[in-house]
This record gives sequence, C-alpha cells and structure tokens, in this order.
Amino acid sequence: MRPFLSHPFDDDKLKEECGVFGVIGVSDAANFVALGMHALQHRGQEAGGIVSHDPEQGFNSARRFGYVRDNFTDPDTMATLPGALAIGHVRYSTAGSKGSTAIRDVQPFFGEFAMGGAAVAHNGNLTNAAALRRELIERGSIFQSSSDSECIIHLMARSIQKNIPERMKDALRRVEGAFSVVAMTRTKLIGVRDPLGVRPLVIGRIGEGWALSSETCGLDIIGAEFIREVEPGEMVVIDETRGIESFHPFERRAARFCIFEHVYFSRPDSILGGRSVYETRRQIGVELAKEAPVDADLVCPVPDSGTPAAIGFSQQSGIPYAMGIIRNQYMGRTFIEPTEQIRNMGVRLKLNVNRALIKGKRVILVDDSVVRGTTSRKIKDMILDAGAAEVHFRIASPPTAWPCFYGVDTPERGKLLAANMSEDEMRDWIGVDSLRFISLDGLYRAVGEAGGRDPNAPRYCDACFSGDYPVAPSDKIEQGFEMKAAE
Amino acid sequence: MRPFLSHPFDDDKLKEECGVFGVIGVSDAANFVALGMHALQHRGQEAGGIVSHDPEQGFNSARRFGYVRDNFTDPDTMATLPGALAIGHVRYSTAGSKGSTAIRDVQPFFGEFAMGGAAVAHNGNLTNAAALRRELIERGSIFQSSSDSECIIHLMARSIQKNIPERMKDALRRVEGAFSVVAMTRTKLIGVRDPLGVRPLVIGRIGEGWALSSETCGLDIIGAEFIREVEPGEMVVIDETRGIESFHPFERRAARFCIFEHVYFSRPDSILGGRSVYETRRQIGVELAKEAPVDADLVCPVPDSGTPAAIGFSQQSGIPYAMGIIRNQYMGRTFIEPTEQIRNMGVRLKLNVNRALIKGKRVILVDDSVVRGTTSRKIKDMILDAGAAEVHFRIASPPTAWPCFYGVDTPERGKLLAANMSEDEMRDWIGVDSLRFISLDGLYRAVGEAGGRDPNAPRYCDACFSGDYPVAPSDKIEQGFEMKAAE
Amino acid sequence: MRPFLSHPFDDDKLKEECGVFGVIGVSDAANFVALGMHALQHRGQEAGGIVSHDPEQGFNSARRFGYVRDNFTDPDTMATLPGALAIGHVRYSTAGSKGSTAIRDVQPFFGEFAMGGAAVAHNGNLTNAAALRRELIERGSIFQSSSDSECIIHLMARSIQKNIPERMKDALRRVEGAFSVVAMTRTKLIGVRDPLGVRPLVIGRIGEGWALSSETCGLDIIGAEFIREVEPGEMVVIDETRGIESFHPFERRAARFCIFEHVYFSRPDSILGGRSVYETRRQIGVELAKEAPVDADLVCPVPDSGTPAAIGFSQQSGIPYAMGIIRNQYMGRTFIEPTEQIRNMGVRLKLNVNRALIKGKRVILVDDSVVRGTTSRKIKDMILDAGAAEVHFRIASPPTAWPCFYGVDTPERGKLLAANMSEDEMRDWIGVDSLRFISLDGLYRAVGEAGGRDPNAPRYCDACFSGDYPVAPSDKIEQGFEMKAAE
Amino acid sequence: MRPFLSHPFDDDKLKEECGVFGVIGVSDAANFVALGMHALQHRGQEAGGIVSHDPEQGFNSARRFGYVRDNFTDPDTMATLPGALAIGHVRYSTAGSKGSTAIRDVQPFFGEFAMGGAAVAHNGNLTNAAALRRELIERGSIFQSSSDSECIIHLMARSIQKNIPERMKDALRRVEGAFSVVAMTRTKLIGVRDPLGVRPLVIGRIGEGWALSSETCGLDIIGAEFIREVEPGEMVVIDETRGIESFHPFERRAARFCIFEHVYFSRPDSILGGRSVYETRRQIGVELAKEAPVDADLVCPVPDSGTPAAIGFSQQSGIPYAMGIIRNQYMGRTFIEPTEQIRNMGVRLKLNVNRALIKGKRVILVDDSVVRGTTSRKIKDMILDAGAAEVHFRIASPPTAWPCFYGVDTPERGKLLAANMSEDEMRDWIGVDSLRFISLDGLYRAVGEAGGRDPNAPRYCDACFSGDYPVAPSDKIEQGFEMKAAE
Repeated sequence: MRPFLSHPFDDDKLKEECGVFGVIGVSDAANFVALGMHALQHRGQEAGGIVSHDPEQGFNSARRFGYVRDNFTDPDTMATLPGALAIGHVRYSTAGSKGSTAIRDVQPFFGEFAMGGAAVAHNGNLTNAAALRRELIERGSIFQSSSDSECIIHLMARSIQKNIPERMKDALRRVEGAFSVVAMTRTKLIGVRDPLGVRPLVIGRIGEGWALSSETCGLDIIGAEFIREVEPGEMVVIDETRGIESFHPFERRAARFCIFEHVYFSRPDSILGGRSVYETRRQIGVELAKEAPVDADLVCPVPDSGTPAAIGFSQQSGIPYAMGIIRNQYMGRTFIEPTEQIRNMGVRLKLNVNRALIKGKRVILVDDSVVRGTTSRKIKDMILDAGAAEVHFRIASPPTAWPCFYGVDTPERGKLLAANMSEDEMRDWIGVDSLRFISLDGLYRAVGEAGGRDPNAPRYCDACFSGDYPVAPSDKIEQGFEMKAAE
Repeated sequence: MRPFLSHPFDDDKLKEECGVFGVIGVSDAANFVALGMHALQHRGQEAGGIVSHDPEQGFNSARRFGYVRDNFTDPDTMATLPGALAIGHVRYSTAGSKGSTAIRDVQPFFGEFAMGGAAVAHNGNLTNAAALRRELIERGSIFQSSSDSECIIHLMARSIQKNIPERMKDALRRVEGAFSVVAMTRTKLIGVRDPLGVRPLVIGRIGEGWALSSETCGLDIIGAEFIREVEPGEMVVIDETRGIESFHPFERRAARFCIFEHVYFSRPDSILGGRSVYETRRQIGVELAKEAPVDADLVCPVPDSGTPAAIGFSQQSGIPYAMGIIRNQYMGRTFIEPTEQIRNMGVRLKLNVNRALIKGKRVILVDDSVVRGTTSRKIKDMILDAGAAEVHFRIASPPTAWPCFYGVDTPERGKLLAANMSEDEMRDWIGVDSLRFISLDGLYRAVGEAGGRDPNAPRYCDACFSGDYPVAPSDKIEQGFEMKAAE
Repeated sequence: MRPFLSHPFDDDKLKEECGVFGVIGVSDAANFVALGMHALQHRGQEAGGIVSHDPEQGFNSARRFGYVRDNFTDPDTMATLPGALAIGHVRYSTAGSKGSTAIRDVQPFFGEFAMGGAAVAHNGNLTNAAALRRELIERGSIFQSSSDSECIIHLMARSIQKNIPERMKDALRRVEGAFSVVAMTRTKLIGVRDPLGVRPLVIGRIGEGWALSSETCGLDIIGAEFIREVEPGEMVVIDETRGIESFHPFERRAARFCIFEHVYFSRPDSILGGRSVYETRRQIGVELAKEAPVDADLVCPVPDSGTPAAIGFSQQSGIPYAMGIIRNQYMGRTFIEPTEQIRNMGVRLKLNVNRALIKGKRVILVDDSVVRGTTSRKIKDMILDAGAAEVHFRIASPPTAWPCFYGVDTPERGKLLAANMSEDEMRDWIGVDSLRFISLDGLYRAVGEAGGRDPNAPRYCDACFSGDYPVAPSDKIEQGFEMKAAE
Repeated sequence: MRPFLSHPFDDDKLKEECGVFGVIGVSDAANFVALGMHALQHRGQEAGGIVSHDPEQGFNSARRFGYVRDNFTDPDTMATLPGALAIGHVRYSTAGSKGSTAIRDVQPFFGEFAMGGAAVAHNGNLTNAAALRRELIERGSIFQSSSDSECIIHLMARSIQKNIPERMKDALRRVEGAFSVVAMTRTKLIGVRDPLGVRPLVIGRIGEGWALSSETCGLDIIGAEFIREVEPGEMVVIDETRGIESFHPFERRAARFCIFEHVYFSRPDSILGGRSVYETRRQIGVELAKEAPVDADLVCPVPDSGTPAAIGFSQQSGIPYAMGIIRNQYMGRTFIEPTEQIRNMGVRLKLNVNRALIKGKRVILVDDSVVRGTTSRKIKDMILDAGAAEVHFRIASPPTAWPCFYGVDTPERGKLLAANMSEDEMRDWIGVDSLRFISLDGLYRAVGEAGGRDPNAPRYCDACFSGDYPVAPSDKIEQGFEMKAAE
C-alpha cells in the first residue's frame, strides 16, 4: 500500500494486497469502475483489470500492469469495455511467485460455464488454496494462473447447480480464509464477505444503479451514496430490476474485522464500521500520548502515514506539531549511487529533514508501525545528522510479531523485528532515546472498545500483533509454519 | 510547480519555471547532478537535461522530456555522461510556444567557440530577449531554439574576449531581467545571479568538490554542506584547483529577491536568505490568524501547499488543526467522465473530503494563493456537499493581481481574479462565508521585516501583488503590456 | 503469409496460419527454436510463443505479438527460457475472433496435469472444435483462449491414461480436421500429423539432439540434417536417450497433402514430399506455357511470389524474362492519401512499374493465384498507365473457388472471384487482353503426377480448387456452409 | 542502401548516404514529401526529416530516427506539418561520428535569417567542410550538428545578399565537393546540383505544382510526371506563380555523374541520364558474359542486387537462370548464437541455399560488387555445403579499390579487398573456381559509351574504381589521405 498518507518506505511496511469494485445499472459501467479502482489504488499498485458485460457485445476484459490512471483512461481501451455491468480489481502481488507475476495472474478471472459466463475478483487469501488446487488438477481442471482465487471459478465450473449464484455458494463453502469477493454474471452483480468479515466491502447507490467497493472512498469518487457494509458471511446478489437480495450461505460466526485496516491499510477518508478512519488514527495518537508521554519540543510525523496519530499526540500532549521531515513526492528508487560519499542515499531520495527546524530540538517521531525496523534506523540517523538533541519514537500500532495470511504481504516471522526483540531491545537496536508502541488494549480503545481487548472474544482479527489466528492457515501449516503455543 | 507541499490544482497556480544544478570536482559528476535535479523537480517537470565534460570524452549531453527519475537513472544513459564536471536543468515551459516545446528547447545549451565549448543553463527570464534575438539574427547567428536563454550563448560566441568567463561577462552585460545562471567550460563551473538576485542560487561543498543549486534541498540530497548564497550580481568561477573566484560584473543595485519563493515555489525544507521556508510559511499562518481571526471548529489545509500556514493558524488561534481534505496521490487528469451524474469529477480525482469529520462543522480552509479562483469554488462545493456548517477561506498570500515576467508562468492579467474584483467580490464569487488574504505588510512581517514593507525601498520583488516591477519588462511593453500607473 | 517470394498484396491472398518448431537434446534449446521460428515466419507473422523446460527451472514460456526477430533475440528474454527442450509456434490469426486476438490465444498452450505439465502447439484447424468445446465446458473445463487447439489440452487433462503420450493419443482420437502438432512433456518432444497429412512436419538431427519443423527450411537455419517427414497419421515421441519412437494412433487412410503448400505457402527453398518447392513452381510455369501460350515481348512476374513460375514460363516459351514490376521492400500500408490526384496509391506504396522497360511492350504477367481479383485489376491499371501495348495474365494455380477449413485464412465463398465467374468473365472484369489459369491436371503434372489428377483417388487436398473436402467441416456445416453438390 | 534489389550483406557494401525530396504548389505538401521519401528510403534508412511552410503556421519540422513508414504516416504528426511547400530528407549516417548520430544531425536544417527562414537538405559530401566549419566558428557561428551540410546554412546566414536565392549562391560558391541540394524559403522551392553533377536530382510536375527528387521513382509514387534532370551546376528556383527559373552560379565544368548509381545505388525502376537503371544492369550482365564466359549449369544471382545482371548473363550465355539462393525477408541481425554448432549463422539468418536445386551443379553466382570480400567467402561456403560441383563468381562492377568522398560510406582504403590483391589473389582468397569482374571499359559500354572509357575525358566519376578523383578531397588530404600517384 502506497498512497493515502502512506509511508515512503513501503518496503518496510505490511502491504494490503487487493481492492475490488463493481457497478450495475449505469451506462458505461467500466468508466465508473475505473474511477472506483483509482480511489482504491492504495490497496494494490501492481496491476488492474476490468471485466464488463453488454447484452450485444458479451463479456469483455482488459488487464494491465501499472496504475489505473495510465491504463484505464484511454478512450480506445474503455470503448472495448461496453455495458451497464462491470467489475474491477487492483492488486499487489498475492500468492503467485513474487516478482514474476504474469498478466494471466491479474484479476478478475473469467470462465465460461454451461449456463453462461462469470467473472470473479477477490480481496483476501484462501488458506486452503494449495490443497484445493491439487484436488482440482487431479480431476482435469487446467489452471491459467498461480492465483489462489482461480480455485473459486473452477469450483463454480464443476458445480451442478443451475444458476451462477448457487454455483458460487457451492464454491464458497469449499474455501477457507479471508475473502471479499465481487463477481458478475451476465445480469447480476454479486458481493460476498467471508464469515469473519476480515476484509471490508461496502454497498453504494448511484442513480438507478448500485456499486460495491472495498472502501467508502470508492463510492465518494463516483458520487455514490454509502448504503451499508456487506455483512460478514453475507452474499448479496444485485439485479437491475430486483435490487439487492441477501443470502447467508455460511455457518454464522462472530466477526473478526482486520484491525490493521484501521491502523494503516484503509484510506483516512474512508468509513469503517461506522467510524472515520482518520479520526480513529488521531485517537490512536491521543491514546499513545496518554500511555507513553515524554517531554519534548516538537511532535513530527514520519510522513505521510504517521500524520493523523502525530496530530492526536500533539493535541493530547500540548507539544507543538511540526513538519520536521519532508517527503519528496517524485520518488524514484533506482538512482545510481554516485559514490560512497552519500550515506543513506535511498532515504534522501524520499525524505529530507527540515534542518533549520530540527536543529537542537528534542523531537518525538510518530510512525504507524515497525516491521523490520531498518527504516526506523535510517530516519533516526537523518534526524541526528540534522542536529536533533533527542529522538523519541512513538508507534501507532502494537509490535508486529506475526505474519498475516489473510491477504496481506508480510515478511517471514524471522524477519519481523518484534518477533525477535523486546521493546527495550528494539529501542537500543534502532538507537533512539525512547521507543514506545501503543498497547493492544490502547488500540482497541482507539477503535471504540472502551474496555480494551476482550481476550476471550476479541472483536477484531489482530493476529499480526497477537498470534491469535481466527482461521487456521492450513496450507502454511502443511509447509511448516508453527502457530503460537497455547498459553 | 507540483510537489513539495504542492497544490493539486496546479493549473490554477503560478508555476516556477526552472531549476539549475552543477557540480565540479567529484567523479561521475552527472550522477550527482541527476540527484540534485531530482531534488529540484518541483521547479520544472516538463523536461530536463545534463551536460558533462571529461578530458578524454569531451562534452556530452542528454536532454529528455519527463521526470529526472525516469530519464537519468538508467546506467546506459548515465554512462554517456562521464567526467568530474557537469551541469543540469529542469524546466517547465518558458518563453517558447506553450505546449509544443521541442527537445531543442531543453537546456542546457551548448556552443562550440574558437577557444573551446561552453554549456549554459538558467532559471529566470530575460526581459529583452526578443530585441536581442532580432539583433543577433541580423548579424547571421542561427538560433536552435525558441528559448531566450540561447541569446546568452550567441552573445558569448561573438565576444572577442580570450576566455569564457570574460565572454560570459560580455554577454551578461547585454541582458536584462531575472536570471540565475549555471554554466561550465572544460575546466570551470560558473554561477551568476542577476543584479537584483530575483531567483535563488546557492553554493555547497562536497568532499573536494563544489556544487551550485537553485535551493539548499539540492545540496542536502547529495550530502553537500551549504556554504553560502551566490550574491545578487555576483559571478563565481569555480575551478578544481583554485576554488571559488568571485566577480561583480554588473553595476551594484539593491537586491529584490522574489517573495513568492517563500510563499510557494521553494521547497519547505530549503533555507532562503537564512530562513527556513517551512517556518516562514507557518509564520504566515500566525500573521493571518492575527489579521483575520474567525470563530470556527476546525482549521484544515488545502493539501498540500496550505499545510504549514494552516498549522500556524491553528497554533495562533487555538482552533484544532485537522485533515478535512485528503489528497489522492495517484493523480490523473484524463479519466473519461462517465456521465453528468458525477459533479466536479475533476476535483474528486484529486481530493476527497473527510466526510465523517467535516459534517456539521465550521471549517477554516487555508490555501496558499488564489489565481483564477476556479479551484476555490470547487473545493467550497465539496466541503458544503459534505455537510460543513460554514466555510471560511484564509489565503497565505496577498491577492495576485499582476503577472510575473521573471521566470514564472502566470495567466494574462485579465484572467487573474484579483485583477478584476475586490476581496468582498471574490468572497461572493467563490461563495464562502468569509475570505481573507494576508496583507502585503503581514507577509513582509512573516519573512522577517518587522516593520512591514517599506514602499520606498521594498526588500523583495512583489510585483505579482503590487504591480511594482523592479526591471521594466521591455519586450512585453513593446507587445502592449500596460504597467501600473504611477500613484 | 508474407515473405519468401511472397506477394505484396497478401490481403488478397490465402494465408497460411501457423508454423511449429521443436528441439530436444541441445543446450539452450529455446535459441534454436527462435531461429527455427524465424525461418518459418512466413507461416504466421502476428505472434509467436516459446515454451521451454529445464529440470531445475521447470516450464517457462514467453508469448509475444510481432516478429520473432523483435521478440526472441533479446538476451534477457531468452535467459527466461532455459533448458534443452523447447517448442515454439508462429501464428497468423486462427479461429479466434479476427482482429482482436488476445495474447492468451497465442500458442503454445500449457497445462499442468496430475502427472506433470505439457505444452502443445499446432498448425491446422480442428473441424469439430466448436462441438468439442461445448462438451468440455459442460463438464466444467474452463477455456483460456478462443483457439480451437486448446481443446487438445483439455482432452489430455481429462484422460485417465497414466502418461502424457497416451493422454495425447486419447485426445487426438477425439479431434477431426487438419493438424500438425508439436508438443512437449518434461522429458519428451512429440510430433503428430493428422491421418491425411494435410499440413507438413519434418524431423531433423542436430548434433546429439533432434528437431521438428513445419518445413525443411527451419532445419537448414539451425544446421540440422533433414531425416524424414513425420508420416500422415504418425505420432513420434522423441527422448534424449531412446531417440524416436513411432506410433500410429489413428485408423490408416490415404494421405491428402495440401497442394497449395506447393503453390504458395511453403518457402521455395523447402523440400516437400521429396521435391524442391522452387522447382515445382518453375515447372508450373512450364506447364502453363504449354497449356496457354501467347505471343508477347516480355514475361514478367508479379513479385515476388510469381517469380519461379515466370522463369519457367519464359524458359518454355522462349520469351525473355524481365523485371517489369519492382517491389518496394519498405512497405507500409498507412500513409495518408495526400489528395485524389494519386490514383492507386495503395499499389504505388508497394510496387512500381519499370516504365522505361514496359513502354510499348506486349507483357505476360505471371501471378500465383487470384482470390478476390481486386489486386489484379490494380496491377493491370499500373501496367497500362506505363504504356504497355498488351497485358496477358497467367495464373500459376487453378481458380480458387472454395474456402479452406484446414488452417488457412480464406474469404467467404461469396467473395472468391472464381466462385462467381467463369474464366472469360474474370478476364473481362479484370480488363486484360487474356487471362488463363493452369488446369488442375496441369498442376498435378507439375507436382509430379504425370497422369494428372485421379478423380477417384486424388493424391492431394485440393478442396480450394475442387470443392472436394477430404474431412467434412462439421462445425461449418452446422453454421450453414453448403458443400458442393455431388456431381 | 538496403532495399531495391539490394544485397543482404549491406555491411559489406558501399552505402549511399542520402535522398532528398521537395514539393511546392500542392496542398498538404508534407504528405507528398513523405511518399517521395518512402520511395527513396533505399538511399538512407537511419533517419528522416520534413520541413513544411504554411503562410499562417510558418515553418514546422519533424525529424525522426527510423523508417518513413513508421514516422511520417501518423495523422497527428502529419497535421503538425501544414502547407503547400515542403522538403524532406532521408539519411544514412554521413560525416558525423558514426553510430552516435544525434537527432540534431538529421536534416533538413533550418535557419532564421533577417529576411525570413530557410531550410536546406542535401545529398552528397562537402570536401572542404572541416575548413569551413573552423572558419565559421571563429567568427561566432554556433553549430547545432556535426553534419557538414550545416555549413551551407551558416554561410547563407552571413551573406549580405538581400534574398535567399542570392544568399544560397553566395554560400555555394564557398563549398567544394558533391552535392544535390533541395532547399525552401517561405515561397520558393530551390534545387541545386554541384558543377560535376555527381549526385542525381530530377524535376517533376504534379498538377499545378512541382516536385524535386533524387530519383524518378520518387516522382512515380506521387503520380508526378518526370520533366527533366536538374543540370550539373544548375540552380532552379521554383515559385508557385512564376514556375521554374534557372541559374548557373558556378563556373561551368564537364559533368562527371557517379557511375556507381547505375551499378547499385539507384533503384532499378529509376531513369538516370535517360536510361533505365534495370536495363543498364541487365546490359552489364550481357557484357560480363561476353568478357568472362564460363561453362556451367546455372546462373544464380546473389539476391537481390545481383538479379538484373544475372538475367543479362543468362540471356547472353544461354545458361539457365535460377534462384539458387533464397533471401529471408524477415531479417534480423541480433539472434543469439545458440552454440558453435551453427556455422555461418549470420548468413543463414538472411540467406538459404536451394539445396535440392544446387546439388551437383556447376553454378555461376552474379553479384554487384566486392568490397571487403568477407561475404563472398561465406556465400561460397554455403553453396559448397549444399553440394555444388563448381562455383564461379561474376561481379557486375570493376574492383572497388578506392574510397568515395562524395557522399558514400566506404571503408578505409586498407580494408578494400581490391586495394590489396590482384583478381587471381582475390579468387584464391575467396576460394572459388573462378572470379571475374567486369572491366571499366565494359561498364562504360553498358552505360552506353560504345567506345568504353575515354581516359582523357571520362564521362563519369569512377574514382572508387580508378582512383581518379574529379574534386580533390581537401579535408581528407589534410588528414593524411594519399591520392593515387600520377602515372
């Protein structure tokens, strides 16, 4: 995830892996989908695809590497995607072999079935995809891609149900994991969230039509009215004439929405679970200032993702907020290092310290999270080089100690700093005067759980902090991943 | 100018037109120049060029349209630019016919003279370029470009002086206007500022070598130490062995540095005239809160350029600072408008209101300037659509009522809102509850002139606000421009 | 088909649709395959693909639009195709929707089966592909492409045989039509020709390895020795250690090789059925001069495909051979027509008449075939404009009156000139002094059948001339195509 | 030069370096110029440029690397070149540093003068360009390019004449060498040939307008009527209203047209000096068969440039003409050599022997010229590998023993095979049964001089064969070139 109040060192961040969007009942639906995908670009920058359907032209699709703004704005391309029904997908790289994603791995996936075609896109990760794929290949299915979401469409193709929504239900009952699916037939737009509701998915109304989007910011850009979230475990089937039909194909379970969407993944102008994401993040800063106060001259965000929490920290502490680090918005990673004379050139390409401001000051730096910790060290170096008197890190999330298997790209556990060190050890390794993370209870308070986290029935998926995985990652366990020992 | 705390509607902003950078005495100088240009990218995004010199390979150059990060990072390209001496230039479009800049208009310009070659790049605008060009053509000079800076190199070619620095002096004594020049011979790096010092130019030390840069942020990125500014009217000739020699070829005049560099053009992390640009902008917000207070719930910047002044306004007024408008960092201007259902789509592509935050609130919006005013209207619409109770605009510069002829791209006078309306008329036209600009005296106070502007000897060039042009724009007057009548 | 002695108006020609090539037992097999594909480029210019296998790297593939020389010569691309076993394919557009071929339609196709992967490429056309596809979809297969050859790989995926060659046999027994298949498993190179042997396929020996190629010219370019043709109805399975194993999975039938390969499709330097293609074409000219003599001053080929027959015609008739029409080898189809002043500009871009030579002469023009006839008219106009006294057309094939359904792109029957007119009517419509086609018997004599065509057991597929289809085109009949009535 | 009956090993050929074209008096003149340049593409493939003039839009230009068909066919590009007057140029690389031609070296060159602009393009080479350039730089001219033709435009800029044709005369009186110039002012099209008329230039009539072209084939493609050649030493000034005015600004000398234009450079469908180029080449074959007969089975051209002479040789000798070598029209030079197993791969990419035809035969190969001789050896190897019994080379030009300094790219003298060996030594070095070149007298007979070459007053420039340079190459002599000693 890169943009919205994003962090310049996203190499050293967890990465959301997908955004989905769909529209029915408006002419030139693909143009709306392109806009929605643009608004969701922070959820995946590697590639994007759109499938549309028109009664005369049938299904059409375009899949491209790169940004939506570069691929889906050309009238020639958009003219190949006619119709009043379309879905789209933006992706980071998911399960497929890293770094070598082929265009065939770009969603939505399309399949022709006996009773007509369907296209499917999803955000999340199927935790039993490897086992399913093995079974399907044995029966003669041929996979186009290395993406686990292709399993869904093969399961649908082999279902003996008479219509596609029923085939979808058949298919989804076989999969495990986290998934927000947007799909389409020739006449219907379909949205599904897994029983835990790990990833977001919302419904909007636009004119006489309807939209589905990973986040509300996708509705805003097309001028759609936010109606409600798709509920955890719900499948909505939307038809131009009959409107929304709601089904609950799964066994009902307590929801566990991803708490990291509040911390970092979602856009600050989106509304999650009825709360402004920006306001939640500012509140994290308030909680952090209460939990971990420190005497200092300035509160500076690590731009841009640390900004809302830094504002909250400043307001709670009374210490002035200031832009001590300036981000270069023309980023580039591939400059040739001229000589060893330039230390930390990678950092300098992206950030510069406001030297005249920082010199001689005691500075509190607010960042959203620490993953490997390498970036934190470089930022500390820059601040000290500029003459800061003291540097205090305050982190707007608890220590990230466990990988996510639900649609987020995380390093292996061994590479997570917090999996290997205590808070004090991390402070010393980074080399700052103090380092404090918000507590898990503090984070729950900031998202509105006044009593903090209920260890017996936590309201959120917080596995990356707690190691408490609400769905067993069965493929990973088969590959040797060790779950946290029961305490 | 687009980036650093830039404004998403730069169509409706004044635009800086160039940045210059040069390095001598470090191996692979072109790599350093590329980094410096990257740091100065906000001063010109259309194109860039580098000329380098190596005793064995002679002069080499590369000129490209587009960003530095896309053009000057490829090892194959950079290998064509060997040597320990190089200069570079980033440009927006200057005098040349708008929208049809040919690559031949991209600087630096190079000419071979009887005693060896020289390359020249400049930031600014020659106000007598048309007359000079006419004269040179009559004598048989053939121009390669439509850029006025090419005059300098032809004047040098025709000088009968025996060395290039002397020829440069000959040439510069013929030109009028605003210019910060970076030039090079086979062995020397040369920097010049016009007698008024309208555009910035600074000197840095890197290892055993030296650098020249439009702003200090260009020194920071290569790890160079900021030594001093080139003085108004000074020519520095830098040699690997002899260091800096200083000349003053022009008649000495009182300096008039561009005050808009403080307001908007320069990067907030640069130091101009000994002052942090960020701090000056924050101080403008403080002054503005004193001059034009208003009762409200939130102070929100128009991102990103209004941010420092909004912070200052909040700190002075005590009204909480908040991110009421979120900027989409994946901008794109060319999406196809799906239907008339989407009002203000152009705005939505770039900005989204934080609806949950704004609803029902009295909001102060702080922006850096108002040029045509069209953007201000659209932003007001978005804020009201999101349910704001009141909208108050506070502008961190005085009304922009006059075009700039010193290297900034300004609309014709007739298109400047402030040239045609009073502050109250502008408020009504934009449609907000209140609108206030900082006074010219307030702006001078923010840049450190405690007594405000001295009308008899103003310290800055503020022609865009005052109509007081320190150098008569002779080409423009010939074309019919009418100066402000003496009062 | 464009190159080798090709015709500049290939829009008005039948077009071969594919070439296949494979190599086993040589290191960097993909480089050899690229060369073979380059030699077969005349069989398909739209796109090409290579799949290779290496024990460590597994299967890899690259598929690209455009020429082999542009796509498969870059070391970076070729490095992604390691291994000693590879197959390749060049294609014109086959069954897929014309003009909108997606990259997913580009062969070879690859599928992962329970016992390992296989890749398949073919030259030809399955006449029951639509019916097979329908059946497979009903059973849950999901097609990636609109290419009929994908049926083969789905049939293989569903076979319950234990190894891939056996699965291939299962699959091929279900398909009808013309096909020369080149396929590969992890350890074997496989070649198959349909029972009639409509399309060519030859075996070569290169060092310790083996090659399969559509034509012998593909062996020449890699320095391989031509061993023999794959026989009609034969499947060869080639293994690095065991060499060639031969199978005959189909019921044996009398062979019917495509006679048009001799006339136009194959390269003149290839050897088909033991005969030099060039020599056969020259012999057609000899037969034509016997069948349809005419008094004239010059024999000129329509370049380049008419050249060998024109040489033969000249040699038999004693009328001097001359280059009366010169071909522009820098073709381009998209020049802007400057004004109506230029008649026949499309022709002029490709051909120019040797005016000084033609003026006042009686000219015999030898062309390879007449499809729509539009080109013949334009060439006649050019020759007359240049002052020829008489123009006589001699055509090196019989009238093309029926479409081909075996892997050749032919216009609908209604657009074939010979389907609608007698030879005399065609002469008048084209507007020449005389027009004669070689007889079908004459053509058989030229390919070595001294007694001409045996109507009871013709040795070749000549359906495009005779309407005698050796395999019923069942998909086409279902779509309404009417076969020739029995006589 | 590559195309028209060109030779596949143009690396081993002399290369024509430019073609020029101009049109006045037809709307959208640039479209005609693009067509003319396309017809002249064989004279230069590296780059091309067009300058047009329109009374409202002034001068416009576009200069591009690559083929005309790729650069000047796009409506957007062509729309930038309005007007009824335009000139164009195709170029190989001339004097500029080989292999690194910058776009600034691409003609036409344009200069703005006091009385209006002019554009100039030329075909040829100025033999005193280096001296002129030195002198002009000393006086303050700044060169844009490394092309010697830029001297002409600087000389014009410095002339004190009142109109451009007079300035052109002033300029041309200072230059030496071979040049066919096409130039334009705002209202006139100008054509000039040097006093010897070394390079061709012809005049055509198109509707109410006029055209200038290097060869008549450029007139044919736009449907223009061939009027006459520009005479050696003539300057024509063409005006829409006044038609052609003719001037003779130079001292009159006996003409010396380049004889190699007949042998190889010009297109076979062009008319030079009233003669069909094709017919001249065929006649060279006739003369060669008389001068150097040999008993054999087949006469085969080295395609394509040897074809007309091979036809003539066959007709004179009675030995059958055959296509023993087939050229691959999808050339590519950069395939990766798979292994050392492939001998002569470079040759195989371009040519293949018609093995079935050649085997056991005594073969006469007719080629147009021998430069370094390396290609001849490779071709001999291929023919022998294919089983030829004997190989006899017959060359349609005399031994090339001297470099050309008049606009043709020739290797240094030391690399010319014929500069170092006798005919017998060359035969042994190439390794063929016999090798014979046409005599210089025979060549003169073929171009119509029944008495052969008059050594006292040769009608053609034949310096590359004879070492008799009609204009002293003064720059080269200064650089050390040694002329042939007087005999």
